[in-house]
Amino acid sequence: MAEASKGQPILEFGLRRAQGLGGNNGVRGALIGGANGSSNIGMSHSLGLQAKGTLAHSLIQSFIALGEGELGAFRAYADLYPDNCLLLIDTINTLESGLPNAIKVFEELQAKGYRPVGIRLDSGDLAYLSMKCARELNRAGFPETCIVLSNQLDEIMIWQILSQITEEASLWGLDADDLIKRLVFGVGTALITSKGCPALDGVYKLAAIQKENKWIPAIKISESPRKTLNPGAKKVWRLYGKRGRANVDLIGLETEDPTREETILLRHPLEAQMQRNLQKTLLSGSEELLQPVLIQGKQVYSPPPLEEIHRIRKKDLNRLDAGVKRLVNPHIYHVSLTQALWELKRKMTRTKASQKDETIKK
Amino acid sequence: MAEASKGQPILEFGLRRAQGLGGNNGVRGALIGGANGSSNIGMSHSLGLQAKGTLAHSLIQSFIALGEGELGAFRAYADLYPDNCLLLIDTINTLESGLPNAIKVFEELQAKGYRPVGIRLDSGDLAYLSMKCARELNRAGFPETCIVLSNQLDEIMIWQILSQITEEASLWGLDADDLIKRLVFGVGTALITSKGCPALDGVYKLAAIQKENKWIPAIKISESPRKTLNPGAKKVWRLYGKRGRANVDLIGLETEDPTREETILLRHPLEAQMQRNLQKTLLSGSEELLQPVLIQGKQVYSPPPLEEIHRIRKKDLNRLDAGVKRLVNPHIYHVSLTQALWELKRKMTRTKASQKDETIKK
Repeated sequence: MAEASKGQPILEFGLRRAQGLGGNNGVRGALIGGANGSSNIGMSHSLGLQAKGTLAHSLIQSFIALGEGELGAFRAYADLYPDNCLLLIDTINTLESGLPNAIKVFEELQAKGYRPVGIRLDSGDLAYLSMKCARELNRAGFPETCIVLSNQLDEIMIWQILSQITEEASLWGLDADDLIKRLVFGVGTALITSKGCPALDGVYKLAAIQKENKWIPAIKISESPRKTLNPGAKKVWRLYGKRGRANVDLIGLETEDPTREETILLRHPLEAQMQRNLQKTLLSGSEELLQPVLIQGKQVYSPPPLEEIHRIRKKDLNRLDAGVKRLVNPHIYHVSLTQALWELKRKMTRTKASQKDETIKK
Repeated sequence: MAEASKGQPILEFGLRRAQGLGGNNGVRGALIGGANGSSNIGMSHSLGLQAKGTLAHSLIQSFIALGEGELGAFRAYADLYPDNCLLLIDTINTLESGLPNAIKVFEELQAKGYRPVGIRLDSGDLAYLSMKCARELNRAGFPETCIVLSNQLDEIMIWQILSQITEEASLWGLDADDLIKRLVFGVGTALITSKGCPALDGVYKLAAIQKENKWIPAIKISESPRKTLNPGAKKVWRLYGKRGRANVDLIGLETEDPTREETILLRHPLEAQMQRNLQKTLLSGSEELLQPVLIQGKQVYSPPPLEEIHRIRKKDLNRLDAGVKRLVNPHIYHVSLTQALWELKRKMTRTKASQKDETIKK
């Protein structure tokens, strides 16, 4: 989503759809991944951040039910937050009621010397409504108000909205870039439930066990080779090509250092016939990825602050080719094994297979 | 899943795939829904239940890595839990290593006067392996050991496994019913993430607001009629047909009682032309479903114990037609509005639409 939004802010609105307090973990993940704030008040407070959100339909509905109308609700909200007035305009009808009422309240605020913040659209055709509302806000003299979009947004919808605005804004007499710079995306469900893939189909398996300060490799063989783990205590190196882009992640044994070889043999993790030699002269550098967290049961690592994790992630993403970051049908980033790890795996898989009979004979 | 398992036990194994502590809420939901236990130790303890699970691959892998073999791991486990020995048999190879090693340990346990509990299969073709293992266990004199199945199970897979066993057990010289009675299903991912539908696309909206002890109905109009809420303080009645099966849920205003009418008019919640008259003489009874939880901010309801909630749910499910409980392409259970609620909704939708102009003119 952060990639799709082209730098425009993303707010995390997902708590109500998360599994209990799992929503708090989601806030942290969203902030690392590129969200610019969260409507989760408790978690924002814990992280030392200002919670960010707008108002609920229920506020406006109450005012309407009690005879004060949408305009009454907007005025009450503007009275409370004159410096931070962002109005949700789709309770009755966005273009015929919400937008003109919001503009009226913005004019009243402006007359009192305040600067209105913006509007939020939570239903309907968000691309169309953004352009229509931007034009009316410009005409009324509020070209700097932001436009917050929400309603089941995901990365594809954000991408589509921005594409449509880029193509069509000029038909509305708008500058596409100016409009896009006013947009903020509020995302909930798709982010917090990871909707397209609600479970990470990976498991922890024992890869090595320590005995007398030595790591002894362990294996679990599966009928499906994809699920047979890579045994032993390992290291991972990321190799960078001449353009500074990540070329491949190489998994090897902790006792070796393939980056010192002039020619690095890359083995496909599953297919024996798939291997290639990489000349070191074609690389601009390499980076060892794993860091020790626990040694002999003692924590030897302090997690960096959130800001730093976010910075590292951003730097890493910037060093990936655009092809592997495509939203649809991305190129698969290569992960290879070293020859030493490949051989250990093959040996252990074979030994285990031949051990079957012995075990049974015991 | 509980419907699909035909009464065979279901164990909740999902904590590792849940969103943080949201997994604890999932245990409660699973137990209400029909699970017979959970491997979540903390939550089981809190609920006063015995946690239920088996062992991990890592135990067996460690023994193998340290030279003790799978048989060594099974023996160690049997020594620790002679009365509760359930062995995970797929670490090396289910049929060639795990099963014969398990039978060996079961024989040793039996010789010491213990009764082995069973095996767990966590990979491969679970229907085929169940039959193959059941036959070998029968031959070895352990026809009462249970067979726990796990590995990405969901309701469809449970249904398929049971169908396949029902059709094919006799080809293996097995009685299908006897084998099915030995099965236990361990479910994790699909249950705890509600994988096919990871977010409930429903929201709370303000339906009424209290003023001077009177409920004033509120509305939020959407461009999509499906999303326009039903206004006002409401009641819900479930109407039962002559066979004692639930026929329809009827939503009305809290000030009316449609069940006292001789002819009950059922309005489709969205389509004006879809309505039907239900003669009271065709009903065997009705039940009011909603119970007050908070009145004037005071809690007036105590949640019943888990067992009781589970009992109520089971009773309710038994009063639904099989058609609405089908796993694939179920019949849609009918929910209707009373004429009074339908009219209030129409009136408020129209008033709001005509109010737009007035609001703007202000």
